[in-house]
Amino acid sequence: MKFAKRMERMKASEIRELLKLTAQPDIISFAGGLPAPELFPVQEIAQVSHDLVLKEGRQLLQYATTEGRPALRAKIAQRMADKYNTVVDKDDILITTGSQQCLDFAGKLFLDPGDVVLCESPSYLGALNAFNAYEPRFVEVPTDNDGLIPEELDKILAATPRCKMIYVIPDFQNPTGRTWPMERRRAFMEVVNKYDLPVLEDNPYGELRYEGEILPSLKSLDTKGLVMFLGTFSKIFCPGLRLGWVAAEHKVIEKFVQIKQSADLHTSNFDQGVADAYMESCDLDAHVKDIVALYRHRRDLILKEMAAKFPAGCEWTHPQGGLFLWLTFPEGVSALKVFNKCIEKKVAGVIGDAFYPNDKTDRSMRINFSNMPDDRIAEGVSRMAQAIKECM
Amino acid sequence: MKFAKRMERMKASEIRELLKLTAQPDIISFAGGLPAPELFPVQEIAQVSHDLVLKEGRQLLQYATTEGRPALRAKIAQRMADKYNTVVDKDDILITTGSQQCLDFAGKLFLDPGDVVLCESPSYLGALNAFNAYEPRFVEVPTDNDGLIPEELDKILAATPRCKMIYVIPDFQNPTGRTWPMERRRAFMEVVNKYDLPVLEDNPYGELRYEGEILPSLKSLDTKGLVMFLGTFSKIFCPGLRLGWVAAEHKVIEKFVQIKQSADLHTSNFDQGVADAYMESCDLDAHVKDIVALYRHRRDLILKEMAAKFPAGCEWTHPQGGLFLWLTFPEGVSALKVFNKCIEKKVAGVIGDAFYPNDKTDRSMRINFSNMPDDRIAEGVSRMAQAIKECM
Repeated sequence: MKFAKRMERMKASEIRELLKLTAQPDIISFAGGLPAPELFPVQEIAQVSHDLVLKEGRQLLQYATTEGRPALRAKIAQRMADKYNTVVDKDDILITTGSQQCLDFAGKLFLDPGDVVLCESPSYLGALNAFNAYEPRFVEVPTDNDGLIPEELDKILAATPRCKMIYVIPDFQNPTGRTWPMERRRAFMEVVNKYDLPVLEDNPYGELRYEGEILPSLKSLDTKGLVMFLGTFSKIFCPGLRLGWVAAEHKVIEKFVQIKQSADLHTSNFDQGVADAYMESCDLDAHVKDIVALYRHRRDLILKEMAAKFPAGCEWTHPQGGLFLWLTFPEGVSALKVFNKCIEKKVAGVIGDAFYPNDKTDRSMRINFSNMPDDRIAEGVSRMAQAIKECM
Repeated sequence: MKFAKRMERMKASEIRELLKLTAQPDIISFAGGLPAPELFPVQEIAQVSHDLVLKEGRQLLQYATTEGRPALRAKIAQRMADKYNTVVDKDDILITTGSQQCLDFAGKLFLDPGDVVLCESPSYLGALNAFNAYEPRFVEVPTDNDGLIPEELDKILAATPRCKMIYVIPDFQNPTGRTWPMERRRAFMEVVNKYDLPVLEDNPYGELRYEGEILPSLKSLDTKGLVMFLGTFSKIFCPGLRLGWVAAEHKVIEKFVQIKQSADLHTSNFDQGVADAYMESCDLDAHVKDIVALYRHRRDLILKEMAAKFPAGCEWTHPQGGLFLWLTFPEGVSALKVFNKCIEKKVAGVIGDAFYPNDKTDRSMRINFSNMPDDRIAEGVSRMAQAIKECM
């Protein structure tokens, strides 16, 4: 059998092998990006599922429109307005099988082999993998503690042909946990407006803010129809229902719909119905408040533990929300070496190099803090501190 | 915005516009491919959903493995053995968001721009659309009333460079309703073995047989690991849960899994759990028997009505199962003209040319018979007969 050329780029990588090590059952894992399952509204979902199937089973279990359940699209539009000051028409929203699917579709929509995708350096591994199937070249835009640096983006766009789109996560970025301040957002939009560059704004964690105010989305600042906003129910509801969405200009959504139709016809109608019915009869805002309270506590705890236990020279970000922080080891300490030592001690993070499509630094690690109870967080940080010390 | 080259091929087509006309609510539509919703096991699904979420909500609603729910994969493997005499290891099955997603993934796995996909002439429109995103060239293999003609395939393979895969539907084909007899299956496998050609065997309707015995799948005759078998729960359970699968050689499934991971992480865990729990606590075989009884009745009715009402010179297939039959108009009668006349009279089929990637004949129409009660079938055939007569 002869596979397509793209498969050479998608083959098992060193990173993939390392990630497998983190999935051993007896490990304290800061490696995943899993929500806390103890907060899933199990009772409510059992009830709304039951009632929904009885009420509208014949429609719910039948084929449905590619665009998605109209009532759910209306609720999403309302929520984007309420939470992110972002006004979109419900007909300019496509519901997808998780927001991961939007990343794949964006690659399909924009990328011919050799085209350039711009991304923050570092960026979300899953997005890089999704785009990779369309054989682009990645150009990394430098970042600092306030996220992407617009002046650097401007320089790159002026000098780089075939830039087709930019992928960014302005809120509580994966993997760094950084958030772009308001001035950065405005400056970024000025640059992309200058070049008419399509923007994929990925916002999976935006509602999970532990301090400060929610900032307006890039989409809400968009005057030229360049921004595609990606949202998901995975972090505010549950990820086992695969529900994400993209909101964009109508002519762009039409293309996404065409792609969706040939890719999987439509998103699970059952999942869509359950989310819709839950939002109808339960209080999603109250549920998100519970999530925020728990994750804030875990963030505070892990920050405290790290400050108390990690050796001098380690640095880490202070995320205002989301699921991750970014740990940087002292000069001369190899993250790969620490990672291997951590695995010996049954604790894991994700090695930072996984998040750079081109440049590697071997100085960093992504740490997730949403999934673990207090005692495991404390014990995990202790083990990791020991591993770091042994590598110094 | 500059879209990828592939989007030029995916833009709104004449066919798409015609299909929109068939979706008007007051129309008697033989155009869709919808299961009969009155048979969906609504009560049972309400109950198993409720119980399942209560029992294992924290796992069910969490992220899951890309490959799919292990217990469901085991049940699928068992069912393939029982129904199609096809032995596959459960670990060589990937669960997908409907079997439509397998078509997209197969395109991604095998096709570089300009590569050749072979298909039956005519073939399933949704598959052609899925492959189209990967910019192949389609070569149509001639068929007769027993399906694909192996000798013709042999000639094409001998003469055509860059043949990367063949897509076939041996059982109750969409759109023609034809089934390949046993000798055809063997002869086909001899030809593909000679050329080591990967085969996508799409089998969405195989269990819906109204006469005769279920024939062994191509996969069950495969000695060289060339066949990828695509299955779905859409026609034997319900399509609103998006659940399909591909079963193939392990090294091929590994590639599908990589593609799936970057495309949407995994199929809805809720949908997978519900199908699994239903098969565990209810009787899927008895349910399929009910479907077969109803569709057999509707097939018999539409065949009788057509024989009584259609003018001389019309011909149509006698499907042994599935959802469709293929209507051919007398020489000189344009299917497009009949289609437009039908729409005037509020009845619809799908114009046959939709199912040919290259050659057009304008002589045929696909007719679905699974979705409509008796009186609508009778009235729809009357209207269509009148439309045909007016076009002669």
